[in-house]
This record gives sequence, C-alpha cells and structure tokens, in this order.
Amino acid sequence: METILVAGAGLVGSLLSIYLARLGHQVQLFDRYPDFREAEAPGGKSINLTLCERGFAALDRVGVGDRVRSISVPCYGRVIHGVDGTLEYQPYGTRREAIHSVSRNHLNRVLLGMALEQPTLDCHFKQKILEVDLHQPSLTLRDLRSGELTELPGDRLFGADGAHSAVRTQMQRTRRFDFTQEYLDQAYKELNVAPAADGGWALEGNAIHIWPRGHYMLIGFPNLDHSFTLSLHMPYEGAAPAFSSVCTPEDLTALFSTSFPDALPLLPNLVADFFGRPEASMITVRCSPWTFEDKVLLIGDAAHAIVPSYGQGANSGFEDCSVLADCILEGGGDWRQVFSRFETQRKPNADAIGDLALEHFHELRDLVGDHEFQLRKKVERRLNELYPDRYVPLYNLISFTNVTYVEALRRERVQRALLDRLMADPGVRERLERGDAEESLDPLLSDLTMETLGQTVAL
Amino acid sequence: METILVAGAGLVGSLLSIYLARLGHQVQLFDRYPDFREAEAPGGKSINLTLCERGFAALDRVGVGDRVRSISVPCYGRVIHGVDGTLEYQPYGTRREAIHSVSRNHLNRVLLGMALEQPTLDCHFKQKILEVDLHQPSLTLRDLRSGELTELPGDRLFGADGAHSAVRTQMQRTRRFDFTQEYLDQAYKELNVAPAADGGWALEGNAIHIWPRGHYMLIGFPNLDHSFTLSLHMPYEGAAPAFSSVCTPEDLTALFSTSFPDALPLLPNLVADFFGRPEASMITVRCSPWTFEDKVLLIGDAAHAIVPSYGQGANSGFEDCSVLADCILEGGGDWRQVFSRFETQRKPNADAIGDLALEHFHELRDLVGDHEFQLRKKVERRLNELYPDRYVPLYNLISFTNVTYVEALRRERVQRALLDRLMADPGVRERLERGDAEESLDPLLSDLTMETLGQTVAL
Repeated sequence: METILVAGAGLVGSLLSIYLARLGHQVQLFDRYPDFREAEAPGGKSINLTLCERGFAALDRVGVGDRVRSISVPCYGRVIHGVDGTLEYQPYGTRREAIHSVSRNHLNRVLLGMALEQPTLDCHFKQKILEVDLHQPSLTLRDLRSGELTELPGDRLFGADGAHSAVRTQMQRTRRFDFTQEYLDQAYKELNVAPAADGGWALEGNAIHIWPRGHYMLIGFPNLDHSFTLSLHMPYEGAAPAFSSVCTPEDLTALFSTSFPDALPLLPNLVADFFGRPEASMITVRCSPWTFEDKVLLIGDAAHAIVPSYGQGANSGFEDCSVLADCILEGGGDWRQVFSRFETQRKPNADAIGDLALEHFHELRDLVGDHEFQLRKKVERRLNELYPDRYVPLYNLISFTNVTYVEALRRERVQRALLDRLMADPGVRERLERGDAEESLDPLLSDLTMETLGQTVAL
Repeated sequence: METILVAGAGLVGSLLSIYLARLGHQVQLFDRYPDFREAEAPGGKSINLTLCERGFAALDRVGVGDRVRSISVPCYGRVIHGVDGTLEYQPYGTRREAIHSVSRNHLNRVLLGMALEQPTLDCHFKQKILEVDLHQPSLTLRDLRSGELTELPGDRLFGADGAHSAVRTQMQRTRRFDFTQEYLDQAYKELNVAPAADGGWALEGNAIHIWPRGHYMLIGFPNLDHSFTLSLHMPYEGAAPAFSSVCTPEDLTALFSTSFPDALPLLPNLVADFFGRPEASMITVRCSPWTFEDKVLLIGDAAHAIVPSYGQGANSGFEDCSVLADCILEGGGDWRQVFSRFETQRKPNADAIGDLALEHFHELRDLVGDHEFQLRKKVERRLNELYPDRYVPLYNLISFTNVTYVEALRRERVQRALLDRLMADPGVRERLERGDAEESLDPLLSDLTMETLGQTVAL
C-alpha cells in the first residue's frame, strides 16, 4: 500500500481516487475549493456536461455508473431549430443510442460521495497548492481558512487539477517539457430555461437542442428538474453578433428576436443571465511528457484539456482512470512502467480527441443546419442501418462505443472516402435531392460499399 | 513616482530596473538566487553570451555600455574548423563589425552593480515567488534563508523572471492567455579551454570558432582571461553522436579524436567537464498577451525566450527595455497605453527573432561548412562591399544594426531572391566554382542588382 496524493477533487480526481483506493492504496485527495457537497460549484465551469458510453464504462467498473445514470437525462437525438421555428429531429443512432446530460456539480457530488465511502481515502478542501516538489514528491498547501501551511509527502502524486493544473505548472519547469495552451476566439454564456408551468419540459426533454447560425449558435441541455441550460456561443470580437457587439439589453433582445425567436419566450431571465455572468472561455491544452520519473502523473484536463464541443472532456478523463487502472494491474509495483504504458496508450488518443473537438466545434456551428451536411447524414444513417457493425458514423464511434479515439479516426477516414464517392454519384445525388426515402439508395450502395467496409473493421 | 515591482534580477530585470529608476520610479527588484556578486552563477544557464549593436544601444542609453565593453571580447569573424584541421576565417563584415563575447555572470554583476547605484532602487535576494496577485498587483515571497513570507504590493509588476517566469505562470490562468513552450531535441554541454602556457589565447582570440559537423557541432567563445568556452551541441537521442550514445570517457574521446581532432589537445579536462555537468536544454517560449490590464507586463525571456543560436536572447531583452522606455516617455502616466504600445511594437519582432533563431540553429550546424553556402557567402560579401548600405546580409542586419527584426526579415526576403537569381546565373557560378577573386563578379552583378536593391531600402 502506497500513499498517493491526488491534486484536484473534481470529476477526474474523484473517480481516480476511487480507483486508487480500490487498488489498495492510501489516497490523500485535495482541492482548493470548498466541499462541493456543501457549497456552490466553483466558477468558470459549465453547468452541464454530457456523458456517453466510454464515460459510463469507466464509472461502471467501480460501480458508480448507476448512481450517475439516476441523475442524468438520456438524450436520443438532436433537435435542430430553424430561424423560422421549424424543428428537425436527428436521432443519434438506430438503436436508441443516447448521450446523457448531467449537472457537473451534481455529478461531482456523487463521485466525491462515493470516494469518501472508501476506507483508505481522506479528502481535504480549501487547500491551495503553493509549492510542488516533484522529486519527493510532496505538496506545500495553504489552508485557505486558517492560512496555515502544511507540507505533505507521498509516494506518488497525481495531478488531476484541471486545465490550469498547479502540478503541471511545476513540471513546466523541468527539462524538455513541451506545453501549449490555446484559447478559441469564441466563448459562451449559459442561460436558464425554467420547466413548463405544468412542471414538464418546455422543450423536447430527451434531446439536445441546437440553433446553428453560422459563426454563432445556441445549444440546449436538459436538466433533471425539467429545466434546460442553454449555451450561447459567439466570437469575442469581429462580425456581429459577438460578445463585443452585444452591449445592452436591447442588443441582446434584438439578437434573440432575429436569430432565436422560438427560444426568446422561454428565457424570461435572459438579460440578467447574460449580463450577470462572465462568458466562459474554451481552452485546448497539450503537453509532453505527462510524467515526472516514476513519481508524478498528470491525468484528465491537466494533461489534455479539450474544447467542450464533442462532449468528451469528462468522458476522456474517466477513460483515463480506467486505462490507468489496467496499467496498474499489469505493471505490478513498477510505477515507471505503469506511467510509461499509460502515456504511450493515452497521449495519441488525447491528441486525437483534442483535434476532433476543435473540428466538431466548427461542424456544430456551421454545418448542422447545412443542406449538404443533412444529405450526407441521410446516407450515413442508411449505411449505418444496413451495416450496423461495419459503418458507424464518427460521432457514434466516439459517443457510443469504446473504440479508441485513434481507431475511431482511422475508421472515419475510410468511411469519409466512401461517403465522398457516394455523394459524387449522380444517381445517389438525384435521389437525395428529390427527397426519396433513404431505402431508395440501397441498390446504389451495395457494390460500392462492401469492399470499403471490409477495411473499416480490419482492426 | 510609482512603486514598481520587478521580478528577476537577471540581465533584463537589472537593466529594466536601471531604466525605471532613471524614469523616476521607486523600484523593488527581487530574485530567488543569492546576490550574484557574492555567489556562483545560477545553474542551467550558459556561461557565455554575445552582445551586438542593438544590445549595446540599449546599454548605452543608460550609460552602462562602456562598462560592459570593458569586460567583453570583440570578435570580428568566425573561424571554421575542418575535420582535417584546416581553418577558414569569415569576417562578419567589411568594416570590422564585431559581436562581443561576455561572461553572463560578469555581465549580470555589472548591470546589478549599476542598478544598486540608483537611489530609488532596492534589491532583495533569495526571495522565491509563491503567489502572484495580478489585480493588486502584489507578490507573496518566501525568504529562502529565514523561511518567512512577505506580501509586497506595488503599483505595477514587471515579470523579468526568465523563460520559466512565475509571473507568467499566474497569467497563464487568466482568460484567453495563449502560451507555448517547446524544447529543441538538441542540447549542449560547455567545456573549458585554458589560456595558452604564455597566458595568451590558445585559439585565435578575437573570433567565434565553429566546428560544423552536420547534426552536431562545437562552438567556441573567447573569455576575458584568454580562456575559451566551447559548447558541444548534439541531439539528445538518435543517430550517433548523441548525448544518449556518448556514455563513457572512451566514447567521448573517440568522438573528439574523429570529429574535433584540433580541439582535443586544448581540452585536458574534457571528461570531467562533460560528465560533471548536465546538458543545457534550449527552449522557445511564446505567449499572448504580455500584459495584464495596466498592472503587469512580461519582458525579456519571460515573454519570448528564444534558442541561443543567433546570439539574440540578451540583445532582444535589452532592446525591450529601451523600447519600453520610449513607450513610457510617450505615454505619460497612462500605463494601459504604454503596455499596449510596447506589446504591439515588440510582439511581432519577438516572434520574428524566435523563428530566425530556430532557423539559424540549423544553418550553423548544417551549412556553415557547406560548399554552396560558402559560395553564397562570397557573393553576399561582395554585394555588401559594393553596396554597403543597400545590401546588408541578414546576419549583419540582426547583429550590426538597430533595424527591427521584422524589417530585417523583409529585407532578407528581397535579398534572398536576388541571391537566388545570381546563383542561378551560369556566368556567376562559373567564376565562383573556378575560385576567381570576388571582384571578378562585379560586371555580372551591377544590372541585376540595382533594381532589386531599390526595394531593400524602401523603408
């Protein structure tokens, strides 16, 4: 049994601590924020997030998946809102695949609660990291209530302290540590939609709602209490609308009347929500190495923060915990090997989902409402229906399987080439443009596709 | 008069403090290292560096240039050492232009000494920054002797605390702060060449010595006491020789016998120097913004660390101080404007020299000993002799003028196109390959060049 310091009692830090305690270690968990179970959620983070298959797989392994399911709202598809109020429902898959909308704070409380049930785990709140000694390893912590400093040594140190990780900051000073953090030139603000007067949903409840509008958009996530959280995404500056151009309540109302008319009546607190909250920025973090000798490991956002558009931040962090557990099980007590296996496996996957999240951000914003995109989706859906195990759209590989991100991207390249060829086929295009039923494509698909799909599953 | 906190009493922090004190401010200068005047130089930094025109221009403005000249060794050219012991002298310019080799520690002591002569300046050593409050601004410092913590407020805070800046680390956590640090896959070790038995130089004294060998090289800098510091540059890993492949004294001696035979007899302490010192890594740092509101400004390596190959690290940092002084003089007491002007002027120049330094690193290593490169240099030298104000090679623009880095690069693009055209001219090439005197090119040059050179000086 080792004493393991875990910096950060957020989502990944809490789940990691459960795993480590279950693997027989003494865990000391720290966070600079007050106990989330008693206090408001820390600022600067989204209210909602979505969990999918790979997140739940990691939660299920330590038996906390069902507790989390019970506080989540399954969403079986997207509802696209046109400017004219038309709605288009796009199911995520053909087998009721769902992503699950959950309150970040509620999820964190559940995970932390589970962590605190572990007999070999102690958790300390309001502890700010002042110094990190990587060699020992040890942490110098300031108690934010008493002001007192303590130095705490351990056998290993895990940095699960998020995109602005203090552990990583210390590693930044070590030899050959490459590091990048980059912000999007876009941000978002969260707005509340109350439940309907009868206590039900004000919008279709088991769906994600999207109002794609080119360089800006609105996205809505359902909450357990039948409220919704809407995120308004816009650039900081530049062509209107942008945060720099929406300065008055009138500007804001005009924007919603013009661009999101069906959302406006659901947002009685729009002005207070918008002007009372800071915009949330979106950061991508990459670094290398994730480890310091056999002493310190970065995990979750501390190692690979990604933008939220693919809904994979928490999922990839949870997957980290599960992969790490496998590495620990395989590696015996050889932590150098454990860390090295973990980084070798996870770094390419973290880079892949980081890139994908940046791409998907543009797709969501620009393409979800786009005609060509819709036609492609139609063909994709049919291919997926016909060959459910052989043609799985990228979004579904990411969200509804446990295939690695890297492998998902490899399959996507094969699938994309196939789709490009199909879309260039005059017969296919004619039927699509005519709006024929998706089944009408079948005779045109079978020959073209089978050869290609052979490659898809050649793992 | 404002109270200005300057983090870092290195080269840039010391010079900056002199400037700020001269501009009428109360300066509080801090460093985590002991007083450089009493102690060994801090580890991890090069023993030598080179100063050039733009560095001296910034030193002269506060009257410290001559003190620095008196401790520097002017180098009027490069001596290229062939494997067979042949030497080729390449003068830097036609008018005895020189770069100046100086001990980093000695230079720092001179600057710090001058800073401490300023009546409105206090300097505090062995102060480690624990916390940075950007809003105040203030610093929480730990006295590394007594362990005591102090919180020190000021009106402004300047982060001159180097490539691993603690001030910048705090700014990293602010909204939309983009940041990259990237290491070269090469490193170097410093080796000492003692003065000759008669007390004179063991190698030509007023020159930089280079042993270019493809993916590795040796560079030598003269010191005031007639010793030399040689830097052995190699990759960390990969094709031999690399740091990973030079493991024993025998490996090392074999490398020098084969690749640097004329240097070997000058290095009686080779084995102890090489195995007794860590290899020094080379980092490039870029970030944006350099400012936090009108409170905090990053300067020197903290804002834009570059690899040392162009010898511009200290020079660009000193130029920062001079440009900042101009911005302060222009901006009155409006610090927001001062900071914004400074960043607008300096950021593109810092990016330019950062890129150039990375490029020049490869040029030094790969091309200095290259035949084609030598021929180009010959043509360049002649163009420079014929049109000394209109054709100035890039290295000379950077090292022997005060033209901005960005403007130097613009001129270089024009000049490079001209040189490409000349090198493709069969008449020019024939004379070059025959080894004719450089003057023999003149009849072929005049028409081709004048039109192009018109653009060079079109500022």
